[in-house]
Formats: sequence, C-alpha cells, structure tokens
Amino acid sequence: MIYFDNGATTFPKPLSVRRAVAYAMQNAGANPGRSGHSLSLRASQLIYDCRENAARLLGVPSPENIIFTLNCTTALNTVIHGVLKKGDHAVISSLEHNAVLRPLEAMKQQGVSYSIAKVVCGDDEATLESFRRAIRGNTKLVICTGASNVFGVRLPVERLAALCRIYNILFCVDAAQMAGCVPIDMLDSGIDFLCCAGHKGLYGPMGTGILAVNTDVLPQSLIQGGTGSMSASPLQPEELPDRFESGTPNLPGIAGLNAGIKFVLSRGEDAIFREETRKARLLYDGLKRNKNITLYTERPDPAAQVPVISFNVRGHDSEETAAALNDKFGIAVRSGLHCAPLAHRHFGTEDTGTVRAVISVFTTPAQITYFLASLDKIF
Amino acid sequence: MIYFDNGATTFPKPLSVRRAVAYAMQNAGANPGRSGHSLSLRASQLIYDCRENAARLLGVPSPENIIFTLNCTTALNTVIHGVLKKGDHAVISSLEHNAVLRPLEAMKQQGVSYSIAKVVCGDDEATLESFRRAIRGNTKLVICTGASNVFGVRLPVERLAALCRIYNILFCVDAAQMAGCVPIDMLDSGIDFLCCAGHKGLYGPMGTGILAVNTDVLPQSLIQGGTGSMSASPLQPEELPDRFESGTPNLPGIAGLNAGIKFVLSRGEDAIFREETRKARLLYDGLKRNKNITLYTERPDPAAQVPVISFNVRGHDSEETAAALNDKFGIAVRSGLHCAPLAHRHFGTEDTGTVRAVISVFTTPAQITYFLASLDKIF
Repeated sequence: MIYFDNGATTFPKPLSVRRAVAYAMQNAGANPGRSGHSLSLRASQLIYDCRENAARLLGVPSPENIIFTLNCTTALNTVIHGVLKKGDHAVISSLEHNAVLRPLEAMKQQGVSYSIAKVVCGDDEATLESFRRAIRGNTKLVICTGASNVFGVRLPVERLAALCRIYNILFCVDAAQMAGCVPIDMLDSGIDFLCCAGHKGLYGPMGTGILAVNTDVLPQSLIQGGTGSMSASPLQPEELPDRFESGTPNLPGIAGLNAGIKFVLSRGEDAIFREETRKARLLYDGLKRNKNITLYTERPDPAAQVPVISFNVRGHDSEETAAALNDKFGIAVRSGLHCAPLAHRHFGTEDTGTVRAVISVFTTPAQITYFLASLDKIF
Repeated sequence: MIYFDNGATTFPKPLSVRRAVAYAMQNAGANPGRSGHSLSLRASQLIYDCRENAARLLGVPSPENIIFTLNCTTALNTVIHGVLKKGDHAVISSLEHNAVLRPLEAMKQQGVSYSIAKVVCGDDEATLESFRRAIRGNTKLVICTGASNVFGVRLPVERLAALCRIYNILFCVDAAQMAGCVPIDMLDSGIDFLCCAGHKGLYGPMGTGILAVNTDVLPQSLIQGGTGSMSASPLQPEELPDRFESGTPNLPGIAGLNAGIKFVLSRGEDAIFREETRKARLLYDGLKRNKNITLYTERPDPAAQVPVISFNVRGHDSEETAAALNDKFGIAVRSGLHCAPLAHRHFGTEDTGTVRAVISVFTTPAQITYFLASLDKIF
C-alpha cells in the first residue's frame, strides 16, 4: 500500500516508536504513579520522560503542564467544556474540525454561544480583522486550528494570541495538523492551550494526544477519579497534570509517543517542515500539470501552509477517486469531508468533498511519481 | 520482579496481546473508520472484531453497544456526568473507588446529590436493604463496584439490578476488578451500564477501557467531535458507538485488548475464577498462619469475593511493608489507600492503608510460597 493518508495518522511509524511500545508492554508493564515498587517507578519515569520531551518540543514552561489524553479531540473538549459556562461566548475560525464545532454546538443547550470568524487565505490582516469583529463582551475563549486538516491553510496563531491577550480572552490552538512540523513555542507565542494529536506529526501511536497548558486559568476537569495522589480526598486534585489525568494512562502509547517526539526532536522540526514542503511541492506541481485536476490552494509555502493537499478529479466525486486509487493502484488517500464541514463550506466543496493527500517524512519521491502517474490514467 | 500488583494492572500480558499490539503498529496502522482504503478497513475490522468479542464476553446484545474508552474511569464518568442533571440523586456503595466518588463530589456544585449505602459483608439482604433505604424519589442512578478493588468483597449486583428495575432507576456497575474473572451476562442480569478496565482481568494493554451499554436510555455524550460518520452535521451522532467515541481511537490498544479478551474467552471465565480463587486461598491461608499479619476479609470464596487480598503487618504501616517487600525481596504490591478512601473508612484502615496482593492467571504457586516466606522474615 502506497500511503498518502498521513493527515489521518502517520504510517509507518519510526522503528524506535514500535520498539518503545513493545518495550513498555514487556518491561515496564506496571501502573505508573500508583504503586511504589520498581516496575511502577520505571513506568512513571517513562511517562515523565515523555512529559519532559513534549515540554521541550512545544516550549512549555514545565513538564507538569503537559497533559496526556486519548486524542486531540479529548484535549479540545477538555478546554471547551472546562472553560465555557452559561452565558459565555466563543469565537472559532471558518476552517474548524468537528472536534471544535460539535462540542460548541452541544453546549448551546447550556447557554453557550459561538461565532465563526472567516479566514481570508493569504491575508492575515483580514483574518485578524474577522476575529476582532467576532469578539464580544462575553467572549471567553478563542479557539482555532493552527492549520486546516483539509486544505493545509495556516492561521496566524501568534498574532491571534496577541489579540486575545489584549482582550483578556483565553486562546486555544488545535495543532492536530501542525505539531511536529511547524515549530511552536507556547511561552513565546502566548498561546494558552495547545491541543495535539500524538499519532500524526509527532509519530506516536494512535490513542495518544496532548493538552499543553500555558496559563494559570485552568479549566474545570472534564472527568474526575483516581490520580494516585491525595487519595484520601474526595475532591479532584487541583494541580497539573493530575487535575486532568484520572485513571490509568495509556502507558505503551505514551512510551511510543515519547519515542516519536524524540524522533522529531532529533530531526528538528524546521528540517522536517522544509523537507515535507519540498515533497508537497513536488506533489502539488505534478497535480497542477494534470488538466483534469482541481486544486484548492496555492503552491505549498511554509509561511502559509502545512503539507496537506486537497484536490478533485473533474467530473468525479472524491469518494470515487479515492476508491479508484485504492482499487487500481493500491494508493491510500482520504476522501469526503474529513470531519470538517465548515472548512468545505468555506472552499465550496461541501457537495463533492475532496481527495486529501498528505505526505510524511517517510514519503519518497518515487511514491509521489507513482501517485501522479496513477492519477494520469485513473479514469 | 515478583509481581503481585495485578489489581493495578495485570503483568505480564499474554504473548498474544503483545503480538497483537505489535501487529497493529506495523500492519494495521491506518485510522479506522475515517478512510475507505484497504489499510483503514483492516483497522476498522480489528476494532469491530474486538467489539464482537467483548459483547460475547459480557453478554451484551450488540457489538455497537461496546464503547471503547481510555480507561474504566472515563467509562464511569461518561455514565455519571451523562446521566445526572441538576436536582438528581445517586446512590453508591460504601466501597467505591475515587473514580465514582470524585465525579459525584464534583457534581455537587451542579446541584446533584448522592447517598452512600453501607455494604454489609457476607449479608446480601442487609446490603440490599441499605440501598433500598438510600433510594429517594429523585434517585436516577445507582452505581456501585462489582467487587472492591481493595478488599475483593463482591456486591450482589444482579439483585441490585433487579431492585433498580423495580424503582425504574438506572444501574451502573464498576467492573474494574471483576471483568474477566467473574462471569457477567448483562442482558440476563439487567445491568444498564458496565464499566471495565481493559488492562486488568481482560489482559489488554493500559490505555483501554470499555463502557458496555444495555439500555435505550443513553447518557449525554461527555465529549463531541469527529466520528467519521455524518460528517456534514455539526451535531454529535446519536447512535452507539459513535455517540461516545469521538476522535481517533487507540487502535494498537484495542487490538491488544481484543487478544486479551480472546485469551479470557478461550480459558473461560469460570475456569479462570476457580484457578485464581484456588491460588488466592493458598496466599490467604499462608498469611493467616503468620501471627504478625492482620487480614481484613474472610477466606476467598467465589460467591463473596474476587481474588484481591488486603493485609497489614502489625506495627508497620502499609507503605513500609510494601517498600520492604520491594527493596529486600523484589516483590511488587500496592500499598496505601488504592484511590478508595471510602472502602478504607468502611474497614477502619484509613490511617494505615493496606498492602494489597492480587494474583493473576500467571501467578505461580512458587511465587506465592516465596511471597509468604518473605513476609515471615520481613522485619
């Protein structure tokens, strides 16, 4: 299988990640933070090591400010449900994933409202102005994607963070398609909450996500339970990370995520981003030469995009193209709405969906050539 | 390390579990339910296979009624936060874990109240009467452990389920220490919600839990997001399992859990329970012979207990004993409150905590002998 579905999850994973998972399963299999014996301490050490590496990667002041979650969606929900109360208002962008849209829609019945700020591709000033206009007196949270999971378009998150500081509004970034590729420094940028998938650009296993916290204004916890700390108290601990980490963590997953983050740290995000942009351009330029293909974005440019490319073959809906790529050529892409109907409405593709091709560090030029050649003769 | 901390998580895992995790990492690494390509379909098939096996094991009518969660705590919170609204009342037992107590305590500020029904060990009639007396007109949920995580004491869950049916109250069982050992048939028993850890008696990896649903009265979803279904709608799908499964699932974990459940199914829960009870008795009888040891429960009896044994060495608190077992003899046990202060209050051990020793199917008689001999000369 020639895999171009790295936007859903990166595959393959680095060997070090697979080995770290296997090691944790076999040699550090005790419950971390619960018991005092050597095996449990080894497990705790693994988790802490991952916190340290994640904090280093994301520019988070302290390892305790790294919260492990099941996935990016859980991290986003922790912020959205934990911050917003009755009467509060949120602002989101017009490119949001259902992981942002659906929690806010569900919270309407609790008296929470939200507005959608229109992103103007290629014009950060205009995008900022959209957000500025959407802010109200009761706006408590601005939440937006760092880069669209469908079209790769980046949002000016540092400038949005600055805007939010001025208005004293909490700012949360959905970094699902950005972490591990676009360098992020939370402390410098003033982002309050950063939500990451562990299994995409961070090359960890599915089942891992991160909520990185860079503010003292902590959301209420979404779930409560045993934390291995302050066990005598019926109250959830207030401190990070325990406040948000109840129950047994995904130890093998976090061990794998740790290896994934180390993989990214050793290659360097800048280098990864450059390399991926180069490959994404190869792909984009080839698609551009094919007269049957409609592309929706400009040529990949690190300042404006992450290496996510959406297209359609004229006269065929995205599902049809994806099925043909799979069946005739053994190529894996994702089609449809990618759980982001807002973004499709923005680009006018809500009826057809798009075919999404996302490269990873493991994508080879030969795979890209094969991909382009397959599209030449697909129908 | 001689591992007697199987109540926190079972270790080692069966070889088939480790292999299934490695297989999923290497050969089924696409995001399930998101894309239509072969690799994604293989991943979806793996997840569905686990749903089918879990439904078979737990006597759940349909595989769709099996929800995968990060851990048992998340499953419990999904029920507690999803069912109870302002003005509602819940009844719990006096042996509950913080995974039940803390969410309820947190919900007090939303106008939810709860009562604690005292368990009378060895007298199910009296226990039932405690619950009956605790029920009020506004009681919406009864939630209790199937077996205490500290003392192994079983609760009469089938009879409690029948009681709840009479009063038209939802009934949820925390099966963290019970699933995989005590046979459960949800359909027969009338339990509405069953919450399981995937990494204890089901022998799956940490990072897995199950919420099994046996009622049409579905809780509100705790989190919302992309489900790969009905993507055009901003509303969370109503159907199971999507209603409660937003974001990318823990594919390698679920693959491992599937192997763990198959391991339990092939051995048979009855056979596992008999074998574990036999070993637990060996341990219990040895501890009983040691005059320096205080035991808190009767001799293990399948009708009344799961094979969880709590004790203390007289004159030493539980942490001291656990540290000595680890440092001098390389034995892993858990000490302290085990995240269950209620249960310790019940047994009068809230000041000292207890040393908990839990065997698994992999515990050998030789390990038990070594454990007992170590305790003979520990201080």
